[in-house]
Amino acid sequence: MGNGHENYLEDYKVGQTFGSGTVRVEADRMTSFAAEFDPQPFHLSDQGAKNTIFRALAASGWHTAAITMRLLVDSDLKPAGGVVGMGFDELRWPRPVRPGDELHVHSEILDVKPSKSHPDQGIIKVRTTTMNQAGDAVQIAVPNLLVRRREKPA
Amino acid sequence: MGNGHENYLEDYKVGQTFGSGTVRVEADRMTSFAAEFDPQPFHLSDQGAKNTIFRALAASGWHTAAITMRLLVDSDLKPAGGVVGMGFDELRWPRPVRPGDELHVHSEILDVKPSKSHPDQGIIKVRTTTMNQAGDAVQIAVPNLLVRRREKPA
Repeated sequence: MGNGHENYLEDYKVGQTFGSGTVRVEADRMTSFAAEFDPQPFHLSDQGAKNTIFRALAASGWHTAAITMRLLVDSDLKPAGGVVGMGFDELRWPRPVRPGDELHVHSEILDVKPSKSHPDQGIIKVRTTTMNQAGDAVQIAVPNLLVRRREKPA
Repeated sequence: MGNGHENYLEDYKVGQTFGSGTVRVEADRMTSFAAEFDPQPFHLSDQGAKNTIFRALAASGWHTAAITMRLLVDSDLKPAGGVVGMGFDELRWPRPVRPGDELHVHSEILDVKPSKSHPDQGIIKVRTTTMNQAGDAVQIAVPNLLVRRREKPA
């Protein structure tokens, strides 16, 4: 939509897509994030990853998820009330993120539903695909996000 | 199990439970995490959260998820090969995490399955419930984790 403003439930349609900016993942931030939150050998050094399924240093999936959130918050998706997740239909990391990877997010609206219990809000289901510079998916997530309605139904 | 060693697929049984240590979530780390990865008003200050569904400063769900990962990595769950998630059946945040909350994780094995395509590994399905000091769940996640088998089947 690209208007820089908040979008209400009524603004979303199934099939709409949104792009994002780009974030470069630096090796030192990968390993400092892992040291704090996910201190496993394959997230800390190439050497530690050598004989694991990752084969070389790979970002923690939670680092990838956090970077994806930042890209989403800064994107034109902009749900009124903020990006507030009510749960996920899916979350997985099909490929590792490597040092120097440049990530962006492609979002697609899969469903738009007014709430029955809360007439002033609704839920949008969004598939967010996080991709590296080669266009390969490194994270696929399908969150259900809370969104305000512009007007309460009569 | 509490033996401090790695556990192989054969060591896990449906219904087994694992505890964790405790982490205290400090307000300044909550807001610095949010400033980097989830810079929305309700994750940055009490003032910014005032007229939102959070009502007061709340941690980003991704910060809660990252802390949960740290507690899990340090717990006795210890799958051989590391805590490597192949995707989630569920991930949600039923209650906000507040400054000063002390979190711990309760894990329960829901399913144990040898892989058909990779005879040297399998998948365990684990429900991890992250709780605050009052025992209220702040995150519920059901990851499927890759685990090595001790011996290949004949």
